[in-house]
Amino acid sequence: MAINPNINPRKNNDYSIDEYVSGILNGDISILSKAITLIESSNTEKLRKGQAILNRCIKHSGNSIRIGLTGVPGVGKSTFTEAFGTYIIEKTNKKVAVLAIDPSSKKHGGSILGDKTRMLTLAGNPKAFIRPSPSAGTLGGVARATRESILLCEAAGYEYIIVETVGVGQSETEVKEMTDFFLLLMLAGAGDELQGIKRGIMEMADAIVINKADGDNLAKAKLAKKEYQTALHLFPAPASGWTPKVEICSALTGLNIDLIFNMIHDFATLTKANGYFEQQRREQLIYWFHQSLQQIIQDYIKHNAALQDFTKQQEKAVLNGDKTPFVAASEIIEKLTGK
Amino acid sequence: MAINPNINPRKNNDYSIDEYVSGILNGDISILSKAITLIESSNTEKLRKGQAILNRCIKHSGNSIRIGLTGVPGVGKSTFTEAFGTYIIEKTNKKVAVLAIDPSSKKHGGSILGDKTRMLTLAGNPKAFIRPSPSAGTLGGVARATRESILLCEAAGYEYIIVETVGVGQSETEVKEMTDFFLLLMLAGAGDELQGIKRGIMEMADAIVINKADGDNLAKAKLAKKEYQTALHLFPAPASGWTPKVEICSALTGLNIDLIFNMIHDFATLTKANGYFEQQRREQLIYWFHQSLQQIIQDYIKHNAALQDFTKQQEKAVLNGDKTPFVAASEIIEKLTGK
Repeated sequence: MAINPNINPRKNNDYSIDEYVSGILNGDISILSKAITLIESSNTEKLRKGQAILNRCIKHSGNSIRIGLTGVPGVGKSTFTEAFGTYIIEKTNKKVAVLAIDPSSKKHGGSILGDKTRMLTLAGNPKAFIRPSPSAGTLGGVARATRESILLCEAAGYEYIIVETVGVGQSETEVKEMTDFFLLLMLAGAGDELQGIKRGIMEMADAIVINKADGDNLAKAKLAKKEYQTALHLFPAPASGWTPKVEICSALTGLNIDLIFNMIHDFATLTKANGYFEQQRREQLIYWFHQSLQQIIQDYIKHNAALQDFTKQQEKAVLNGDKTPFVAASEIIEKLTGK
Repeated sequence: MAINPNINPRKNNDYSIDEYVSGILNGDISILSKAITLIESSNTEKLRKGQAILNRCIKHSGNSIRIGLTGVPGVGKSTFTEAFGTYIIEKTNKKVAVLAIDPSSKKHGGSILGDKTRMLTLAGNPKAFIRPSPSAGTLGGVARATRESILLCEAAGYEYIIVETVGVGQSETEVKEMTDFFLLLMLAGAGDELQGIKRGIMEMADAIVINKADGDNLAKAKLAKKEYQTALHLFPAPASGWTPKVEICSALTGLNIDLIFNMIHDFATLTKANGYFEQQRREQLIYWFHQSLQQIIQDYIKHNAALQDFTKQQEKAVLNGDKTPFVAASEIIEKLTGK
């Protein structure tokens, strides 16, 4: 373990909150990793410590472009991230963090970012930080931890944050709510590949990028680009003032990786000028505040055996048509507040 | 007021719960209206009475096709509903209820269904029940009341329920979550008209119907139909197994009103056979159960001055970057549960 020589680990092998904070602000990758582990912990004491560290770091967060990346398995998210992250570091000399949100990673086995072997070049770059998705936890918990990891990475000086997710579940909405720019990776030849993508995701995208536009696939990718451009044209204009773009790219040959980088910068320039960038981040904060309220109440119920049993009974009563959802929920809150 | 002669109003001019329930089951429109008013009430005692009535009625609910209808102002929702509702009654001799969810109705003044004058024929039909949107309340409260009104209408024997909303806010998601079939009304000539529609709504639609396909507009509507068909083709397939349809219609000339009716029946036949119809309703019940939990907690906080002040402080602290959303929310729950 690469431990900052200025910091003495305590007897219990852990650092103090002060030590964590200064380690993160100094960009110590090992300490950053340990702090994220605290944030992800289901142990209340560890989680509290993680939150205390985070609370000290938020004043130093925010200075990055947060990029959400989604697409079905097989679309090439890892190779894209490898090529894109490496390009960013070479082009800007800035630090890049890659996080993943994939609550299904335990179930599916072969998770995105489950191992770093798919991004060998990027993983070996000292300016890159790659963090796999937590392998356990509810979507709510995983999403919170990922969002908070973004803040810790920013405090540690990462100016480009890529948050990956698989476009087949609920997690894209969460990623959309924690990023500035949302990129949907697709394959040409629509049909089959598309079946896996959840409805509603296309309309969330700031850009649709058709990957694997190389070799025999290039002509098909160009055709797909035209089709998606026509389709997006029919969509209502987004509140950002940005017109969602459709591009082809190849993570393999490097085709248009530069163009996608410039596109994201154009987006940031436009939305910082028209106020949308800041506005979206504020709305996201409010979203996470309310998500946290729900999450904590759910956790509170889950950790209280009597309440949990009662909630299950109520859910059953609702499904059987014995009680309305409103009555069933009211009775839970009465128990919760003791009133 | 047409009061059922078999029922004696009490001194305080209200009925007992038994009287309400039997009135609703007998299809008494006046009693149904009064019960909906209770469900909509912000007065706790009235709301409780409404819930008690509803709880007795749910065993008699469910036997209808619930149709969600959305579109921007000016697309012709009222004239469409007038033509469509009248057609259903003539064709099937069944009863039709029209409800509206429009939390903005107070602000905007001229609300959908704000008056029944736009649906004179339907409003005068004894087999139709038209209920404007409550003019006050949060979206959560209005949505709950509308969903519960559906159940009361079903208990009163309405077999077609049309729930209208304006496609410019958050309310379409709520309508989608309380209906079986979601119909998006559009105008030809895309561009301007579309700007008002919220992103994401197109992908929720089971059908896109281009209204005002009459006179000079007919050719444009046919062209728009082709464009939308191509665009929808690029969307992922919905879980229902139903391929979303695009049609033109004219509420003015009656063009394709029959076709839309048949389409909705085809949808119901397909999804009842493949199990999706029932599955969606069960998922919706769980959705409303969890929505109610949130709503009631919010109301609980709102009606407790100290908690509300504290929540506002916490929200401010989150926006200022003084606290993380998680820490801010945790502190509220500690106060709420007294732990």
